[in-house]
Amino acid sequence: MRICIIGCGAIGSLYAAHLGKLDDIEVWAYDLNPAQVDAINSKGLRVTGLSDFTAAVHASIDASKIPPCEFGIIATKTLFTRSAIEATAHLFTHGAVCSVQNGIGNEEIIAEFVPHVILGTIFPAAHISKHGVVNQDAEGKTWIGPFAGHPASMQEVETLANALNRSGLECLAMEDARGAQWTKLIFNSASNAMGALTQLPHGVACDQPGVRKVMSSLVQEGIAVSKALGITLDSDPEALLDYGREKAYYHPPSMLQDILAHRKTEVDALNGGIARLGRDLGIPCSLNEACAAIIKGLEYSWDLKIPEQKNSLSVPRYK
Amino acid sequence: MRICIIGCGAIGSLYAAHLGKLDDIEVWAYDLNPAQVDAINSKGLRVTGLSDFTAAVHASIDASKIPPCEFGIIATKTLFTRSAIEATAHLFTHGAVCSVQNGIGNEEIIAEFVPHVILGTIFPAAHISKHGVVNQDAEGKTWIGPFAGHPASMQEVETLANALNRSGLECLAMEDARGAQWTKLIFNSASNAMGALTQLPHGVACDQPGVRKVMSSLVQEGIAVSKALGITLDSDPEALLDYGREKAYYHPPSMLQDILAHRKTEVDALNGGIARLGRDLGIPCSLNEACAAIIKGLEYSWDLKIPEQKNSLSVPRYK
Repeated sequence: MRICIIGCGAIGSLYAAHLGKLDDIEVWAYDLNPAQVDAINSKGLRVTGLSDFTAAVHASIDASKIPPCEFGIIATKTLFTRSAIEATAHLFTHGAVCSVQNGIGNEEIIAEFVPHVILGTIFPAAHISKHGVVNQDAEGKTWIGPFAGHPASMQEVETLANALNRSGLECLAMEDARGAQWTKLIFNSASNAMGALTQLPHGVACDQPGVRKVMSSLVQEGIAVSKALGITLDSDPEALLDYGREKAYYHPPSMLQDILAHRKTEVDALNGGIARLGRDLGIPCSLNEACAAIIKGLEYSWDLKIPEQKNSLSVPRYK
Repeated sequence: MRICIIGCGAIGSLYAAHLGKLDDIEVWAYDLNPAQVDAINSKGLRVTGLSDFTAAVHASIDASKIPPCEFGIIATKTLFTRSAIEATAHLFTHGAVCSVQNGIGNEEIIAEFVPHVILGTIFPAAHISKHGVVNQDAEGKTWIGPFAGHPASMQEVETLANALNRSGLECLAMEDARGAQWTKLIFNSASNAMGALTQLPHGVACDQPGVRKVMSSLVQEGIAVSKALGITLDSDPEALLDYGREKAYYHPPSMLQDILAHRKTEVDALNGGIARLGRDLGIPCSLNEACAAIIKGLEYSWDLKIPEQKNSLSVPRYK
């Protein structure tokens, strides 16, 4: 069986290396970073942190060099879903593609390009420590299920889940995996947005009573939208916020990392996604909408050019 | 007649210098910055920008050196209202004290210390260009009226208004000046909070449709609270936002200036003040409450010490 990981950053590398340990699976990785691709091809892909092993993975920056695959796992930032699946769709004319990305809206895009789509949600955390080396920071399950729009069969979902379980990544195959997706989405809408805007690590943000209250209001808006969609959450996002506070007090949510590095965030797929669906369904989501608008405004400020003579931001201020 | 300006930063200096031009008024300035006080005492207080003149003002960092006054004008940042009036209250046992500060809650604090209080709202803008020199950036009226809690008499209000008008600062004496105060408060709650959180100048922020929508929602919350308080606004805060966009497109709201300099903001007297009154009155103010909580969280982040071994904010990130 052949699997292609699309986007071989932290999460993509974690999945590629684990699957690369299995003798019956040939793993390919598609990534646009030549240094990452070269490192993987010359030395293999190494996992450190919670475990330590190196696996053989074929990597390429050119999707035309990759043979057809039974499965694709797309692990890019949500900003790049469209360009990534556009470049690789031809590999999956007889395969199924699974998103393990953040937020909502990815599966809809993937379904524009391939016939069989799997909706996925993951909890492991990782970061690339150098090219070809990914450090696993946190364990966590993977939930996958057919995406209603262009569904993969349950047999395909179970085949992929089986491979992931054998590779050491615990995976649950479900008829409806939206409960897991929305639980993580709602958690993220609170933890990521408040981290990004207050610049506080997750646990510290939770301990500011006013900030925690905003988190809870964001969670309530998300729960209301999930209910209107007929989704049964896997667990209580509030309890997840507490769990995160306990386990990762000083963890900077990924959106805070993006803000500090002036990288465009995934807010459109998180708070923005909840707000869009809320608008369609008539569910008030003013806080999710505000967080999305403010974070988009902040992104816009990074590239703003203010005419020299009007830049009173540089007027010397009295202290 | 003797008037003491309490807090001789940009706005305090503007008022002190203008009043210092009048022969029948002796102007004192109380300020904690020795360099500013020395400059004023040795060279006088100079106004540049929209006009250019220098006036004689007596300045002191020691309130016990200042003689009793008929009027006080308090122009500190709202964070320092209590300490400023605490230090100077003895000057006004037979006088009236007027706040020309941002937001709400200042008059209540002043009334704890002096018997006659005047509520004031101002629109001029200025910045200190160097010690003893204030540049007036924008013209604008001053509205003053008795503060209901411990009111000054209308005669006192009119005497102060008369002095300001003669000095070149247009001032309206009103029986109820809360309409002007709340118009500016509501405008500020939108312009300052969105500027601070998006880091965009006022006009640029107004032109982001999502951000402008949040501004309008903040305005609506403020208007609902003002109505519940029986206050008739002077003008439409939405129109003021447009006017500001027109006249000061690249102006960084003062709260944005504070955020960029890592100075504590006045958010407690602006969005926080609206949210507190909303809570008391049962008017939902979730966006003002969220903005206040997020900005307080951001202030908290500046001094946060993260234990070295837990500081994954410094983990090298893959790009």
